[in-house]
Amino acid sequence: MSESSVTDRLFHESAAEDSLHAAERLSEDAWQRLTRSPERFRVLTGERPTGPLHLGHYFGSLQRRVEVQSQGVETWLLLADYQALTDRTGSASLGESIRDIVLDYLAVGLDVRSERGLAFCHSQVPELNQLMLPFLSLVSVSEIDRNPTVKSEIENLGAGNVTGMMFNYPVHQAADILFCHGNLVPGGRDQLPHVEITRKIARRFNKTYSPKKRYFQEPVLLFGEAPLLLGTDGKKMGKSARNAVYIRDDESTTAAVLKKAVTDSDPAITYDPVGRPTVANLLLLASLAAGTTPQAVADEIGAGGSARLKAYVTEAVNEHFRPIRALRRELAEDPTVVRSVLERGNELARQAARKTLAEVHELMHLGNF
Amino acid sequence: MSESSVTDRLFHESAAEDSLHAAERLSEDAWQRLTRSPERFRVLTGERPTGPLHLGHYFGSLQRRVEVQSQGVETWLLLADYQALTDRTGSASLGESIRDIVLDYLAVGLDVRSERGLAFCHSQVPELNQLMLPFLSLVSVSEIDRNPTVKSEIENLGAGNVTGMMFNYPVHQAADILFCHGNLVPGGRDQLPHVEITRKIARRFNKTYSPKKRYFQEPVLLFGEAPLLLGTDGKKMGKSARNAVYIRDDESTTAAVLKKAVTDSDPAITYDPVGRPTVANLLLLASLAAGTTPQAVADEIGAGGSARLKAYVTEAVNEHFRPIRALRRELAEDPTVVRSVLERGNELARQAARKTLAEVHELMHLGNF
Repeated sequence: MSESSVTDRLFHESAAEDSLHAAERLSEDAWQRLTRSPERFRVLTGERPTGPLHLGHYFGSLQRRVEVQSQGVETWLLLADYQALTDRTGSASLGESIRDIVLDYLAVGLDVRSERGLAFCHSQVPELNQLMLPFLSLVSVSEIDRNPTVKSEIENLGAGNVTGMMFNYPVHQAADILFCHGNLVPGGRDQLPHVEITRKIARRFNKTYSPKKRYFQEPVLLFGEAPLLLGTDGKKMGKSARNAVYIRDDESTTAAVLKKAVTDSDPAITYDPVGRPTVANLLLLASLAAGTTPQAVADEIGAGGSARLKAYVTEAVNEHFRPIRALRRELAEDPTVVRSVLERGNELARQAARKTLAEVHELMHLGNF
Repeated sequence: MSESSVTDRLFHESAAEDSLHAAERLSEDAWQRLTRSPERFRVLTGERPTGPLHLGHYFGSLQRRVEVQSQGVETWLLLADYQALTDRTGSASLGESIRDIVLDYLAVGLDVRSERGLAFCHSQVPELNQLMLPFLSLVSVSEIDRNPTVKSEIENLGAGNVTGMMFNYPVHQAADILFCHGNLVPGGRDQLPHVEITRKIARRFNKTYSPKKRYFQEPVLLFGEAPLLLGTDGKKMGKSARNAVYIRDDESTTAAVLKKAVTDSDPAITYDPVGRPTVANLLLLASLAAGTTPQAVADEIGAGGSARLKAYVTEAVNEHFRPIRALRRELAEDPTVVRSVLERGNELARQAARKTLAEVHELMHLGNF
């Protein structure tokens, strides 16, 4: 077989490409099946440890992860410390970010201390990272180039300012998901291209190295309603200096941050996301914290103006997070908590990665001398 | 520090770039120093296991490696099995190629069974492969793109037919060299861009994560005279069907392959590499095997024509390789030889990689929770 026909076979499949519509159907189907048989699923999710988690993370993602885990789905949480090197050369604060996030997980009710879940760090699982290599042989440079995250980074910064780490991020993420045979990834539409490249890698691996028996399952992106909270300055939350309230914040810090929130001068509070985005954003946050709707909050405040709105949202947030923050403070007092979570998680992740890598090598006839 | 100034600092060094001239000076200096203090050097070299080694490998590279090792320089030989997946999807014959090459090494006198040397496989050293990740954060996409091997692959095949494995090859090779603190890489000019990217990664790592004490040494490319042998059809050796004589071949196979060599119809044998390349190539091979010059061989044959030339080169090659092949046959009879070489080499490589990765992580503050 010539080299070109080999690559043709690999990279130009005639099978229909995944589409948003197909992904949504898969997601709906997965929601139904996980209610019936949660034991057939394993969630892989996580974050780059670039700081503590804020209310955008909480209402946009953490709540749903807690919900899925509470259905009985085992949940593996990845702290992607290597990927936090993507756009930062200093790494001295990585440890602090990791500790913060593990405490955030525990405080909001993500169980990472039982058979229901665990948390681990990228850098501590060599066999997971090694899986990137066989996977890199299954994707083309242009497929990586086309990934929207990679593409926009290169367009925005120029290829001279995008690291090889960022370029390989979609394949690294495929290794994250597949090393533990994760088959469910909660996320938004922006995650679809990443999950699709993972599905492609799984398919191609099976086809090339395990044609008789499917080795990797193709993971499903689990869509869900996720409100988009902006920062208190109307920009993306957490990207500007102090435009976010963090889970770990105390009540007076929360009040101070929300007091400085940008609003407008119209004292009549109405819910108008297009015309009055900063006011609408505070109403949305208040409603999420209070378990009501933005409209209901607006009606309650009426002509009270920004000051009344800010007092309302501050109280709602502080009340919602009071038990969460109390638990977090308690956990933070004992330095062994985070360490034991990660030691256990790293060890379990490592066991899984060793097993998967050994099986992958056997299927590929590697190490067979 | 803004993100752009971080990347500027990383990727646009004001220091003078390496140049061929500078590399040649470094190489000359290294030749002198290794004669005096061979214990200060460690060679990292190796190959992609895509088949047994032929006479082009032997006269072009193996002889020099043996010479350097005989000076007392510790030599680590890498069998880059993952990189053999770069342009082949089947991997069933990898094990056979690896066994062949280890036997070739031993037969030609490369010591991979004592403190002077070892041989190991990429796939068996997770911590080496993991080193790629921190290194990927130290190079830009355009720096990888500019690597001549990557560039020509993409130009020749198109980005849709070049794998992510091939794209990352220069950074993978940096991990190969630096994981064992190799500081000497024997090779030709084509290796210069690879060694230069390794030197850059070493410099940037030191600058970013170990500014006070140099952690990685910058490896030196050790240039040497390497005759370029063509295949018996005048094309690149080993690329066409049976245009090469292999170290492992027996004498009658050698005779059969050389008998079919392309020559010209002029019975007067002269050494004219430009005007009579295929004849010159046989003269070169004969002279290398017999330890003389192509001109001397041509003079000896005179008007004897191609038949006489082919008989001469066959005898010279078979004589040169008689003891090598006898040793190889003896070693091949015992299946534990290769296995024990690789088990030992993989274990020693793994110990080195574990140590380097742990030190790298400590300098980067990774795993510090």
